[in-house]
Amino acid sequence: MVGPAKNSNAATATNPTKKLHLSPDSIINLDHGDPTLFEPYWRKLGEKCTVEISGSDMMSYFSDIGNSYQEVTDFLRSGLYKWAGDAYDFDKDGPYIEIVTSPNNPDGAIREAVVNRKEGKLIHDLAYYWPQYTPITRPADYDIMLFTFSKSTGHAGSRIGWALVKDKVVARKMIKFIEVSSIGVSKESQLRAAKILGVVIEGCQDSASENFFEYSQCLMAERWEKLRDVVKKSQIFSLPKYPQEWCNFTSKYVESHPAFAWLKCKEDTNCEGLLKAHKILTRGGERFGVGKEYARISLLSQGEDFNEFLERLSGIKTTEQGIGTT
Amino acid sequence: MVGPAKNSNAATATNPTKKLHLSPDSIINLDHGDPTLFEPYWRKLGEKCTVEISGSDMMSYFSDIGNSYQEVTDFLRSGLYKWAGDAYDFDKDGPYIEIVTSPNNPDGAIREAVVNRKEGKLIHDLAYYWPQYTPITRPADYDIMLFTFSKSTGHAGSRIGWALVKDKVVARKMIKFIEVSSIGVSKESQLRAAKILGVVIEGCQDSASENFFEYSQCLMAERWEKLRDVVKKSQIFSLPKYPQEWCNFTSKYVESHPAFAWLKCKEDTNCEGLLKAHKILTRGGERFGVGKEYARISLLSQGEDFNEFLERLSGIKTTEQGIGTT
Repeated sequence: MVGPAKNSNAATATNPTKKLHLSPDSIINLDHGDPTLFEPYWRKLGEKCTVEISGSDMMSYFSDIGNSYQEVTDFLRSGLYKWAGDAYDFDKDGPYIEIVTSPNNPDGAIREAVVNRKEGKLIHDLAYYWPQYTPITRPADYDIMLFTFSKSTGHAGSRIGWALVKDKVVARKMIKFIEVSSIGVSKESQLRAAKILGVVIEGCQDSASENFFEYSQCLMAERWEKLRDVVKKSQIFSLPKYPQEWCNFTSKYVESHPAFAWLKCKEDTNCEGLLKAHKILTRGGERFGVGKEYARISLLSQGEDFNEFLERLSGIKTTEQGIGTT
Repeated sequence: MVGPAKNSNAATATNPTKKLHLSPDSIINLDHGDPTLFEPYWRKLGEKCTVEISGSDMMSYFSDIGNSYQEVTDFLRSGLYKWAGDAYDFDKDGPYIEIVTSPNNPDGAIREAVVNRKEGKLIHDLAYYWPQYTPITRPADYDIMLFTFSKSTGHAGSRIGWALVKDKVVARKMIKFIEVSSIGVSKESQLRAAKILGVVIEGCQDSASENFFEYSQCLMAERWEKLRDVVKKSQIFSLPKYPQEWCNFTSKYVESHPAFAWLKCKEDTNCEGLLKAHKILTRGGERFGVGKEYARISLLSQGEDFNEFLERLSGIKTTEQGIGTT
């Protein structure tokens, strides 16, 4: 049984997301999008989100007794599909799959399908379609929609995602893929994700408790405001502008506050190189098929990292050219 | 922080491995090797193996701050290798990987590499090289050794395995593969596996507590003894014989008690079909490249299933021929 602890034999471990104690010399890694910024919210909730798992819980491969799994061999024998590059350049005949990431990574833009042919299947990656990142302008109602626990609540370490799929045949194939490739998903992670998502839903329904999405929307808005202030004063950098749109979730006009800032330097400057010279690690535009004057910067780091990043950014002089290669 | 619970807000869930209440008509699935037989041992340990995870624990992608991960795209573009079939029939030139499963699945035999050429890499799958299944005749000391939490302690739902690898370059490639394919492994599962393996090690060192491997060795020996009794009286079935060997772990002569019974029927009988007619699901010999008179039967089911299986097996008459297809 999974339930409250009766004595003090439960595991103890140190918190891996410890304080970093940054100095001006420390490297700040804003390349990946490790979403540690929401940790203080979850800490504040205390034991409301705690799960406890005893040694005899969830030992079976199966959640529902009665399944059986297939051999992995056939699956590994051949590639299932080939990557065909940017959908805008796609000109091949025959069946295809188009992946629509909306809001988009790296630039936070709302995207729609571009190929639009009969033989195509669309997969909508809605990892960032949450109120903290973008106005929720309409119910998501696509054929295949992917979501991740990482970006919604910030629990990246659990490796939990989910899909909403209209066609039962496609859904069954997706389940089979997971079974064949990994014989299922960690039961511990599933239990914890169910618990935490339950607390999030409760928080949205109960006006007495702090709604996670209101908290995280405020936090992202605050970070974007601070970042835009620094960028405005810099004369080197610029950021995309996002329109104010009506958000059905929060019932107000808001603009996007993407998880990544898509920072642009003045012409001929290597943005990633320039930031690297200040020990800020980001991902340069060339990795996304655009010019080196762009860099993608994670805004999901812990507060200390984010503030140190702003301080260093505001100290970069107009004469610097982005020495240092990527 | 991960630690003992202070109040009763922790998650509650029903135990998914519930009692089955078998009737003579119930289907018994002994096809897969779901290792639920050790559950009573872990239940008896009570809260000694309990882990408790609060909402703010282990949120980061990373266990060690400082890593960063690569894009999944290149990895998915092409197959990494091709399956070349049985190692005994392998006659191609060039580099190859040979997987040695020892003890072997389905027959429990101890195996060695068979191709033995200079360009080859060996991977030893030691999933069943544990005292409950086979005598530990020598320290495992191969180049690449794979283990799984599922078969060692019975915690299949956690999806945790580990590898011991001598060559650092190979080890780094394996880590990269896990990063690229899944951006890491569930932190919840890792924490629980570390806790439970710690308790197992303690139990092996402390003579006052019940050693898991002694418990599980007794259980497997008892099941094999009961099964051999039924088979001996049957005049239809036979089982492989395993030699008594010195086990360095338990310091006594023991024979193998494999996780699967490799049951053989008399000539021209479809073993899987015969058992299926008695609502016992197994995996027929043809799935393993041998005759239909063989079937692989999991001995890792819960006690109720195992006892019902024995009862039905002992009731099968010599005149039955294995009607029913697989």
